[in-house]
Amino acid sequence: MKWSQAFIPTLKETPSDAEVISHKLMLRAGLLRKRVSGVYTYLPLGLKIIDRVTDIIREQMNSLGSQEVLLPALQPAKLWKDSGRYEQIGKVMIHFVDRRGKEMVLGPTHEEVITDLVKNEINSYKQLPIILYQIQTKFRDEPRPRFGVLRSCEFIMKDAYSFDKDIDGLNKNYSKMHDAYHRIFERCGLKFIAVEADSGIMGGELSHEFMVLADSGEDLILYCQECGSAASQIKEDEAGRKCPRCSKRLSTKNAIEIGHIFKLGVKYSASLSATFLNEKGEAKPIIMGCYGIGVNRIMAAVIEQNHDKNGIIWPYLISPYQVTILAIDASYQPAVEYAALLYDRLHKENVDVLLDDRDERAGVKFKDADLIGIPLQIIIGGKTLQQGMVEIKFRRTGEVIKVRKEEALDKIREILKKEMVS
Amino acid sequence: MKWSQAFIPTLKETPSDAEVISHKLMLRAGLLRKRVSGVYTYLPLGLKIIDRVTDIIREQMNSLGSQEVLLPALQPAKLWKDSGRYEQIGKVMIHFVDRRGKEMVLGPTHEEVITDLVKNEINSYKQLPIILYQIQTKFRDEPRPRFGVLRSCEFIMKDAYSFDKDIDGLNKNYSKMHDAYHRIFERCGLKFIAVEADSGIMGGELSHEFMVLADSGEDLILYCQECGSAASQIKEDEAGRKCPRCSKRLSTKNAIEIGHIFKLGVKYSASLSATFLNEKGEAKPIIMGCYGIGVNRIMAAVIEQNHDKNGIIWPYLISPYQVTILAIDASYQPAVEYAALLYDRLHKENVDVLLDDRDERAGVKFKDADLIGIPLQIIIGGKTLQQGMVEIKFRRTGEVIKVRKEEALDKIREILKKEMVS
Repeated sequence: MKWSQAFIPTLKETPSDAEVISHKLMLRAGLLRKRVSGVYTYLPLGLKIIDRVTDIIREQMNSLGSQEVLLPALQPAKLWKDSGRYEQIGKVMIHFVDRRGKEMVLGPTHEEVITDLVKNEINSYKQLPIILYQIQTKFRDEPRPRFGVLRSCEFIMKDAYSFDKDIDGLNKNYSKMHDAYHRIFERCGLKFIAVEADSGIMGGELSHEFMVLADSGEDLILYCQECGSAASQIKEDEAGRKCPRCSKRLSTKNAIEIGHIFKLGVKYSASLSATFLNEKGEAKPIIMGCYGIGVNRIMAAVIEQNHDKNGIIWPYLISPYQVTILAIDASYQPAVEYAALLYDRLHKENVDVLLDDRDERAGVKFKDADLIGIPLQIIIGGKTLQQGMVEIKFRRTGEVIKVRKEEALDKIREILKKEMVS
Repeated sequence: MKWSQAFIPTLKETPSDAEVISHKLMLRAGLLRKRVSGVYTYLPLGLKIIDRVTDIIREQMNSLGSQEVLLPALQPAKLWKDSGRYEQIGKVMIHFVDRRGKEMVLGPTHEEVITDLVKNEINSYKQLPIILYQIQTKFRDEPRPRFGVLRSCEFIMKDAYSFDKDIDGLNKNYSKMHDAYHRIFERCGLKFIAVEADSGIMGGELSHEFMVLADSGEDLILYCQECGSAASQIKEDEAGRKCPRCSKRLSTKNAIEIGHIFKLGVKYSASLSATFLNEKGEAKPIIMGCYGIGVNRIMAAVIEQNHDKNGIIWPYLISPYQVTILAIDASYQPAVEYAALLYDRLHKENVDVLLDDRDERAGVKFKDADLIGIPLQIIIGGKTLQQGMVEIKFRRTGEVIKVRKEEALDKIREILKKEMVS
């Protein structure tokens, strides 16, 4: 993409209503804009990051043999009454009455809908196990939307559901999913911890939350600075608790929940009568697990953990572009031409590259490049090019190396080859 | 994918509430299931087709320099009052009051939201032209949902919006988009005609509808059986009209609208004050166009035009799988092994292949293969394999050819190489 034709509206000033650093940088870097409180429009750069994250999620879900479906946002309220969650979930669920007088809701989650689907399609143990997932927009009427996309009213989730004939099967799927979550968050460049958690309104026997340690975030967790591993959701009476591994006093920190997995057992299959016939011909409720990831939250959490005073620092695998070329001497024709040549070459090799060809001062281009956070900057200036050189700047470290222009392409390939494998 | 592990719930009987052939076949082939009237769940096979269609759309939109964004479904009712469409659109728009007492709607279309976005980001002619698009779920409270996904309450649309400084620019973008629509629908394997149409509630000066001739569909159009080209939306007084090209009497037919493009002009930019400064420093309303495609409708329209008494016949480019391998002799081990080997080889070459390895009779496998409509069937039977041969069946024509098993892979490659280019 050429920046002169791209819709990347960066901002010099931070909008006053952004509280946390990820929200401020998302607005300034032109990733999104607020529509109303808790509701956002994703601009091209922001949507590219969402796409990278969902690609990583799909790859891992598919590798488990999990199959993608798409469930509807519109759901009959009756289904929630049947499962017993209608009263429990309360005002956070958006309601309306349709023109046929039927009470409908907008799905804040999909346990009821998927259980009802599977109930009609699965009737024998021979059809189990099965894992279905979707990547879909969910709706919540949040009492207090805040922190940008961290607590919003319309957001993208990956939700997966496993269906098994016995507890052994559930345990296996839960463990496979747990491992896949580790791979997903690692590929997204996140430092995270998995903590045993309260199942809350979802129900079931056991759940784990995947938490990103960050200065922003709504959850407090206990974790061990020493060994990193021991952690749990904080409860009032746990202040001062010691690490069971190394006996150091546990620290508390605001954390962002990016994933939550649950052993649901028969909570939904029993209440909605989703049964199967086992080997003996007996009708039994299907054993379920459910597995959620907040896609938009990953984007925010990555920024919380990967930024400096100048802007975002995207990990290579989820960056909207891997390389940005800065043609900083618009008046020096050979520099303009060389930048265009390098852009074409990289583009043809399927490298995601952004060429800053705008009619702007070098200072503006440097500032914007640091702000939007593409990991590799190729700087083509008049003076260095006259010496036959170009500069490569690594966004994360700020390190700048000079390479001969004939060797630039090889050097970029070499860096990407190393960095694009996680 | 191996069918034994896949979620493809085919049906022998047609559900009684399906009226049109595309809806019947979508249910029978396990592409989707109804949630409530006008609201569907897409199962793995159905979602794959949606993905193929959106890939084709994205490819063509991006090739125009159009950039993808994602607008919210939740919209403030006030914006619709400001544009003057609130009363006009009426009950088809879903309303609710959020917990802060604000009246909200679910977007049935996005002219208001995108105009308001652009208004805040574009202020100079130097930033024009620009085309933005999204692929997103829209909501309508239909008075009478029917014909499966052809008239539904929750559906996926591609909507694009062009922004220009003058009418010349709009005309160019409209013409580029018109051509891109031709390429999109051709690649989807559709026979269609573009007809000049009434702009209706969208407003503006000129619009074209892209219509698929089919036995199902809600629109009547006039078209010329002789030269195919002359056509228009039918009006009461036009019965008996003659083709302006060849003077033959025009025929009428039920048609499915799959796309609609509009020269909006300044309808939205004027009412919502989306202006830019022109070369002389004067504030002018931005000139707009909008361009919609019904993604789910394409899927239905393709089935309407591509089926026989046994089931669907997918065009290669949007088929969920290009090849299906039928291992029809589960008791003959060499056939099972050869089928698995061929599956692995094709899978490694990134061919989308479905192996029917279920413990089912040959008759069931043949019937299901024809029903789900994968264009190329590779039949591995005991007797033919003992003669060193396998059978290749072309779903569209029913033609079966025998090839030596050593040559099967080359033959499949050759067919796909030819068919996967449109």
